[in-house]
Amino acid sequence: MHEISIPGLFATLAVMLVAAKLLGELAERIGQPAVLGELVAGVLLGASLLGVVPSEGPAAEIVHVLAELGVVLLLFEIGLETDLREMFRVGTASLSVATVGVVLPFLFGFAYWAYLPHAASGGTTDLTTTAIFVGATLTATSVGITARVLSDLNQMNSPEARIIIGAAVIDDVLGLVILTVVSGLVAGTSLAPLGILRIFAVAVGFLVVAVLVGRYVAPRLFDLVVRMQVRYVLLVFAISFALGLSAVAALAGSALIIGAFAAGLILSGTNQFDTIEREVRPVASIFAPIFFVSVGASVNLGLLDPTREGAGGILGVASVLTLLAILGKLAAGWAAPWVRFRRLVVGVGMVPRGEVGLIFADIGRRAGILNEAVFGAILLMVMATTFVAPPGLKMLFGSPSVRKSR
Amino acid sequence: MHEISIPGLFATLAVMLVAAKLLGELAERIGQPAVLGELVAGVLLGASLLGVVPSEGPAAEIVHVLAELGVVLLLFEIGLETDLREMFRVGTASLSVATVGVVLPFLFGFAYWAYLPHAASGGTTDLTTTAIFVGATLTATSVGITARVLSDLNQMNSPEARIIIGAAVIDDVLGLVILTVVSGLVAGTSLAPLGILRIFAVAVGFLVVAVLVGRYVAPRLFDLVVRMQVRYVLLVFAISFALGLSAVAALAGSALIIGAFAAGLILSGTNQFDTIEREVRPVASIFAPIFFVSVGASVNLGLLDPTREGAGGILGVASVLTLLAILGKLAAGWAAPWVRFRRLVVGVGMVPRGEVGLIFADIGRRAGILNEAVFGAILLMVMATTFVAPPGLKMLFGSPSVRKSR
Repeated sequence: MHEISIPGLFATLAVMLVAAKLLGELAERIGQPAVLGELVAGVLLGASLLGVVPSEGPAAEIVHVLAELGVVLLLFEIGLETDLREMFRVGTASLSVATVGVVLPFLFGFAYWAYLPHAASGGTTDLTTTAIFVGATLTATSVGITARVLSDLNQMNSPEARIIIGAAVIDDVLGLVILTVVSGLVAGTSLAPLGILRIFAVAVGFLVVAVLVGRYVAPRLFDLVVRMQVRYVLLVFAISFALGLSAVAALAGSALIIGAFAAGLILSGTNQFDTIEREVRPVASIFAPIFFVSVGASVNLGLLDPTREGAGGILGVASVLTLLAILGKLAAGWAAPWVRFRRLVVGVGMVPRGEVGLIFADIGRRAGILNEAVFGAILLMVMATTFVAPPGLKMLFGSPSVRKSR
Repeated sequence: MHEISIPGLFATLAVMLVAAKLLGELAERIGQPAVLGELVAGVLLGASLLGVVPSEGPAAEIVHVLAELGVVLLLFEIGLETDLREMFRVGTASLSVATVGVVLPFLFGFAYWAYLPHAASGGTTDLTTTAIFVGATLTATSVGITARVLSDLNQMNSPEARIIIGAAVIDDVLGLVILTVVSGLVAGTSLAPLGILRIFAVAVGFLVVAVLVGRYVAPRLFDLVVRMQVRYVLLVFAISFALGLSAVAALAGSALIIGAFAAGLILSGTNQFDTIEREVRPVASIFAPIFFVSVGASVNLGLLDPTREGAGGILGVASVLTLLAILGKLAAGWAAPWVRFRRLVVGVGMVPRGEVGLIFADIGRRAGILNEAVFGAILLMVMATTFVAPPGLKMLFGSPSVRKSR
């Protein structure tokens, strides 16, 4: 009746969850954030090592959907925990950090590829297109990973965390614009400035309209919902709201996670938000690890094999790209000189590229703009930035902090 | 990159969840169990009316997986809430009720089809095979629906509930045996009595061995788990345990839900079972409605259209089958005369056929043993039995009982 083996899938999910927690625990024991352990669990379970996480076919599709559910629930939870007034207070700082953190890495990447000698050849397309693509993969910040690290470190309420989360969300909006421009390059059409502006307006407009309307409507709606008597009606409505707003965001040309974050911001203004937050947390805690293990599993360890043909060149290019990626985002910490905050913390917090970088790289590879070697180098850069930030933030925030669920 | 539209899927899930809760609330307001409203929500959202719940393609596949996750989490929760010693006390009663409740409906259905006149013709195969199939579709009890009704009515701790749940689980074991025999009929091979015995032994053996070994190992394992410090480690291990044992049960030739129920029984013996139960409940409350809405959505309302060709014959056959299905299970309430319990409650509790009946009918239809007319009549019988039990139990248990999540 169904082409997928449900027992096989459930066994895979069980192994992913247990491995995530075991390696997360190990990471905390050696003084690192738990999410780093979950990423390593993914690398171990991925196609290039144990092959437990499916990489193609319907099973991979379903794991992908559950991972997306995980990142949506995670951003929803982060939105719920975010104080909107505090966000506005650091708004200009976030905007400056985000802008510098997108522009600098892009220019670095573009210039390196277009003007400096490098070992890996481009692709089937011209040098400028490839250089634009390489630059683009250096821009996006993975809000999921950074937020999880800050949450693991119990630092979600620090001013630095607010600036980082705000900037990462703005980065996601900018990332959408870049993604669309880049997809236009793939299709061979050159986007008019007006078209780019339109995409930008849609993404920003969605967030602003959703939050403004939502903060007015949601408290009234949930005051009605709470009068219902069926089991867990608040939780089910809250999660439906997050799923619905994610879908609307994506269909309106914005992104799932922006909708989920907006849903959290909106519901943080309801009278029932403490109950919602308490009940959402266990649900999110089941699915978020599936996302992080999936990100880890998409890493191809074969690229690190030094005996592989062309491995030296790839590693060289990867090192330069990683350096540029880190420098570009670190510099962003010094944007907004008129606000006081720990600049190195913000810079390091912006470093991880995670899944967004992987999506960009994958589009370029499939379009033939990035060949296997450049793609490999970009993957290594994404890995390195993702793995560097958690211990970096941990170190900067000082002493180990332990957080229990009970 | 992926053939499935994730925004579309998330929107579908949001609509399914909201509809389930709204109609569940409506059902409670008019004095019925909430699960009845969730089933009606499914009928409304199904392919034959609004078409919101996908009925084919990758989206349907994913909804199916989430529904299975729902029924697994539900049975896990029920297992956690089950007192194993109390179960043993009513063991012989459950066994008698289950046996009578399988044998009588089977004989009724077989005799009706093989010896009495009826309007709908069989299929491409001989009369005896079709009669065996019709009998088989009358046997299985839907433990999911009955347990949800008992839980909605706050009656999970009554002796009747224990007998029903125990008998329904035994029914599932017997159902597996029947399913395998019936699949053998489809394949044209006649199963030897020894083969049937082997299937039976595997299903029973799995449950016994899992619970015996688990009750010894799990408390020691979870005393170690609780010493870990990462967030929600108990919950994630508990759900992984349920997923893993479900998978093992299915791969060992038993069924997913038997494994999930066993996992709950096992973990109810750990020192941390109250924390586990409290944290599992919100997660189950998100997925269980997806299961009930899916069951409702699989109903084809077109069969009820009186202007449809042959509708009279189908409705006639469906009425007889429904009557036989109800009488056979009601009679089961009078099994085990040496134990005192409210026999009508147990009889009514065993009536719903739900998803198990649908699976049997679907296999018969695809194998050409049941034609569209017989299949339609069986579907109507499954619907009728499923919709009859909730208000019946509600009536028998008396006054409306309200249960809130907070």
